[in-house]
Order: sequence, then C-alpha cells, then structure tokens
Amino acid sequence: MRTLNVALGERSYPILIGAGLRQEAGLILPLLKTPRVVIISNETVAPLYLGGLAGVLRAAGVEVGEIVLPDGESYKDWPTLNRIFDELMAARCERSTTLIALGGGVIGDMVGFAAATFQRGVPFIQVPTTLLAQVDSSVGGKTAINHPLGKNMIGAFHQPRLVLADIETLSTLPARELAAGLAEVIKYGLIRDAAFFDWLEANMGRLVARDGEALAYAIERSCANKAEIVAADETEQGVRAILNLGHTFGHAIEAGMGYGEWLHGEAVAAGAMMAAELSRMRGWLDAADVARIEAIHRAAGLPVRGPELPVDRYLQLMAHDKKVEAGRLRLVLLEGIGSAVIDGDSPRESIEAAIRERLDG
Amino acid sequence: MRTLNVALGERSYPILIGAGLRQEAGLILPLLKTPRVVIISNETVAPLYLGGLAGVLRAAGVEVGEIVLPDGESYKDWPTLNRIFDELMAARCERSTTLIALGGGVIGDMVGFAAATFQRGVPFIQVPTTLLAQVDSSVGGKTAINHPLGKNMIGAFHQPRLVLADIETLSTLPARELAAGLAEVIKYGLIRDAAFFDWLEANMGRLVARDGEALAYAIERSCANKAEIVAADETEQGVRAILNLGHTFGHAIEAGMGYGEWLHGEAVAAGAMMAAELSRMRGWLDAADVARIEAIHRAAGLPVRGPELPVDRYLQLMAHDKKVEAGRLRLVLLEGIGSAVIDGDSPRESIEAAIRERLDG
Repeated sequence: MRTLNVALGERSYPILIGAGLRQEAGLILPLLKTPRVVIISNETVAPLYLGGLAGVLRAAGVEVGEIVLPDGESYKDWPTLNRIFDELMAARCERSTTLIALGGGVIGDMVGFAAATFQRGVPFIQVPTTLLAQVDSSVGGKTAINHPLGKNMIGAFHQPRLVLADIETLSTLPARELAAGLAEVIKYGLIRDAAFFDWLEANMGRLVARDGEALAYAIERSCANKAEIVAADETEQGVRAILNLGHTFGHAIEAGMGYGEWLHGEAVAAGAMMAAELSRMRGWLDAADVARIEAIHRAAGLPVRGPELPVDRYLQLMAHDKKVEAGRLRLVLLEGIGSAVIDGDSPRESIEAAIRERLDG
Repeated sequence: MRTLNVALGERSYPILIGAGLRQEAGLILPLLKTPRVVIISNETVAPLYLGGLAGVLRAAGVEVGEIVLPDGESYKDWPTLNRIFDELMAARCERSTTLIALGGGVIGDMVGFAAATFQRGVPFIQVPTTLLAQVDSSVGGKTAINHPLGKNMIGAFHQPRLVLADIETLSTLPARELAAGLAEVIKYGLIRDAAFFDWLEANMGRLVARDGEALAYAIERSCANKAEIVAADETEQGVRAILNLGHTFGHAIEAGMGYGEWLHGEAVAAGAMMAAELSRMRGWLDAADVARIEAIHRAAGLPVRGPELPVDRYLQLMAHDKKVEAGRLRLVLLEGIGSAVIDGDSPRESIEAAIRERLDG
C-alpha cells in the first residue's frame, strides 16, 4: 500500500493506494465520529462494490445506509443532489454521520457537495472507483454540481477525511474511461513533472494494459503532484489554476456537445492539444513538443481533436468558465513540457486559430 | 457610527452600526475586488431601500445588478435560491462579483449560501434591514436554506466581508418583527450578559418605542456578545451552541405550525420560556427568575407560551434538530440569568413537563 499525505493543516488527510483497500474496514473505522455511515454510489458501481464495502463495515458494527443514484454526468444536478438530502433527512442522519462516496468523479463531486452543505458540513470519505477520480477529483476538496448554463458552477471546497484508491476497482472500468483518466495523468507530466512525462512515454502501454504496478505508480505520482499544488493553494487563488490545463477548452466541448457526450478526460485531452497549439503560436513550444504531446495522447487512446462546433461557440462557452476574471479569458498554457504558465494575453485571433487547428474533420 | 470587529483571522470583518449607513458608498467601495455587485433583496424591502443603495453605488462607478425575490420564510428554499443562480449565470457574474444581501434574515441566509456556493465562493456583504438580522443572522457566517423536513438543514459557514446595520431601516419594520428581533437581544442577556439583561429590563420601553440611541446600544451589545462567541467557535463545535437557547423548542414550533406562521423570534421567545421552565425543574432557576424572564418577553411584546401542538409532536420535531448528537437531544438551559449551560441529561418526562407548562390555552 502506498500512502500520501495532503498537507492542509487541520484539514490534512491521507490518500491510500493499493489493491483491495475497499475491503479493509480497519482503514475507515478509526475516522468515524459515531459508528454510522451512508454509502452513496451509482447504479453501475453499486452492484460491483457496494455490497462488499457495506458488508465489512456492518461486520465491524457500523450502521450503514445506502443510496444508489443514476449513473452519469447528466445527473450531477440539483434534483439528484436533493435525493441525497431527502434520504439523509428521512433517515435522521446527524452531523456526526460520515458520508462515503463510492464511484467516479460525478459521485465524488456530488457526495462531497452534499457533505459540505448537509447540516452545514458532515465528514466524508472518498472511495474512487475510476482512474479519473483516483488521480484527480478525489484530491483537493473541490465539490460541485452543474448548472444548466455551466459545469461545476455550484459547489464548495470541502476536504475528505480519507481517500481509498483501490486499484482492483479499475479492472471493471471500460477502456474509454480508463483513457479519460489517463488524460489527467498526462496533464501532471505536462504542467510540472517532465520526468513523469518521460516515464509515461515509456510506460503508456503498461498503463493501457492495466498493469497493477504501473497503475499504482502513476496514481501515486499524479496524486503527489496534485497534493503539492493543492497544499500551496487550497482555494484556487493562484498556482492551483495550472491544474486546469485543457479544461477551459474542454468545458466548452463538454457543454457544447451536451454533458455526458464527451467524457471529461476526453474533452481535457482535446483541450490540452488546443492549449499546446496556442503555446506553439506564442513561441513557447516547438512543433516537436506538440508532436510528443499528440503521440502520448494517441497512445492512451484519447482524442487529439475537438468536435466541429463553430469557433464562435467555443469562445462563447469558454467565456462562461469560472477562470474568467474581469471579463478576460485566462488560459493555462505550456512554456515547455513540464512547465505551465497562466496566460491572459493571448489575442482572440490566436485562440481562434488554435481551436481551428484542432477541430475534427 | 459604532464599529465592532468579528475576529476570525483572515476571515475577520467589521460590523458598522449607525443611521443612514446604507447610503454611504464609501464604506463598501474599498472592499470590492472588481467594481461589480449584485444586490439581492425581497419584494417588501426593495421598494424602500434598493434604489438608494444601488444609486449611490452606481454614482460611484459600480456596475449594479438587482435581484428581487418574494418575501418570507417559505421562500427560503431551493427553487428561490436557484433563481439567484440562474440570474447570476445569465448575467455572467464572475468569482470576483460581490453579492449584497439587503433584507432580513431570510435574505441574509439565502444570499450568504448563494455566495458560499456560487462558483465555490464569492464575496458578500450584509445590509440587514430587520432587528433580528442586525443582531443575529448577519453575525457569524451561518448561511442556509430550509429542507421540507427541517429548517436550515442545507447550508454552509461563509463569512461576509462587511455588515452595515443601518438603524434607519428599522423605522419601517412592523411592530411584530421588531419584537421578534428583541427576542434574540434578550437571549444574549440570558445566556452570558447579566448586566445587559438588567439594562434591558430598564430600557425595554425605549426599544419598543424605537429610540435610536437605545437601539444602537442594544445592537452593538448583542453583536459584541455574538462576535465573541463566534470568534471562540466558528463552526459550532462547542460553546457556540449556547446561542441556540430556545431554538430547539422554537424550531419545533416553526416547523409544527408551518414555516412563516410564527416568526422565528416569536418561536424563540416561547422556546426560551420552555427552556427556563426546564431549568427551574432542574433546580437551576427559581420561580422569581422565570417570572423576570417572562416579564421582559411580555414587555417586548413577545409570546411566552407555545402553540397547542401535541407534546409528542414537539418531541418528534425537536429530534430533527441539528443539535441532536448520537440520537440524544442536547438543550441549552440556564444556570442563572446570564449563564447558559448545555444539557444532555434532562429526562424525557421533564422535557415534556416543561413544554406542557408553557402550552397555550
């Protein structure tokens, strides 16, 4: 088992990475304020893993509630969140009840937001079952639901007490979702860890083949990178923004196609390619860098072009992104592989050209 | 102008108390990250004070949006909150846009929760226009909406940047709402400030007659008491709970009668009398203390008995209160006038007897 600490003062918490962790009640028990939890999962993950987790906790004397939500980004909305509140209220859950998020990023974000706001805050634990959630959304305390006009627009910062990344759960992950998770793994290499990028170039085949050792290493290295950034900037006032490489373009893709059509990681991959093109136009990357970035995304099975929406539509949707400040679009670009920069000076024409360069068709 | 500081480290903020403060743009301008605000008010308060506040800010070059919500506790719900989000999204508000809550406790709680969660947190300023909001809900950062099964069940802790308590706005307050605010003022005397309780006994007539000097003093003293408690316990882990004197009984009254039938302060007054009776049964207060507590509530124009719901219904509704821990009802009682105690040991029979002692009819 690999252990990482996210250092956030009194909100610090450990991330544990290993095989079979979801069955080890002993990792969870010491953190419970009272022996009562509610596990919240979705219709896809629950049949696979809910019974096992609930079983070991019940065997240890914990009262376990279960809430199973529909699966998918389109359910990361108020009505679904409200189902959680309704069930917690009906079951008379208290401030000391711990919520456990068992699923991917949607479950993690939504359960995290429920935990942030139910009775103004209850403890929660993340058991992420997708690669994306293990390397990204389970680290950093960002929680949210979507608004019809924008993704993750309603949310809070709320740190979990513990993250259990059980790599066994990746065995049941569809290939497309594994690839979507790899988009965020690649991102850490791109924004701040050139050595990790090199390792990824050498080992992408093992990751795609779900080699356990390779996955555990990639998850640990990704989480370590993210944890360092989050520790330096918990509420995204500054450096944390570099985590959004590809995300402003990517959010436009997700929103423009309708949430759920493109997976988040797929949209981020295409968005990272647009950011790479813009970085090349700014003179920071050369064509060989862009080719390496494209090659690793292809090796991971990820798209390297965005859908053919009108360029104006991209810009309109990007203007709704949270990273906008004083009406100005701020983008994460690359000064080199392994070095991100936050840029507010790219002319509109260059942004349009970068998008156009990476449109499908 | 009286100034108080709520000491919460980097989340510290000032409370300014005086006549005409809502018209002084100079108090607000230095706090804005960008010259853009959205003032959120209700249909009762907006015609009286929204134009003036918006006008002075616009004259100072600030872009001012306005959202006017229906008035009343029954609108402190998700659909109304969502109207705020819809309008902020449609107007493309950013993380740097400041929300200004102009109204009573419902507006303050709801705008505060919108500010806590819109884009995971935007700045907000409180301009409370009721006595209750000036002495209570604008201090301490508690924000929330109601759930059909419980009051304030969904919310967050989110501190304002500034509170402007303009006592001129109290001139238009209905007498019943002034009295409801006085219930919380009396509470501060009861729980920790015996000298203030004595002052209130001597000056309740001036407060009911809306004497400006007396009101400003009572607001300052109330806020000072609350600010000290909140500074010691920002997220209600311990001592802050004493602020809930009368509130667990009171929430049962509000929920049992349907939110909005009884004003919050009225329910708290009747609830404080029930807590006083229970404190007497526990041997902590004598009959003379209870008589003084009843007399000051009467002088303020407040109810001293609860509505005649079945006692079982009271207990059932009280069990839904957030102050429940491990299934055990924890109540704020009085060891004397000016000294609160948190009690988890009162037998159910005594609680029932205290309620019965203070039922109407």
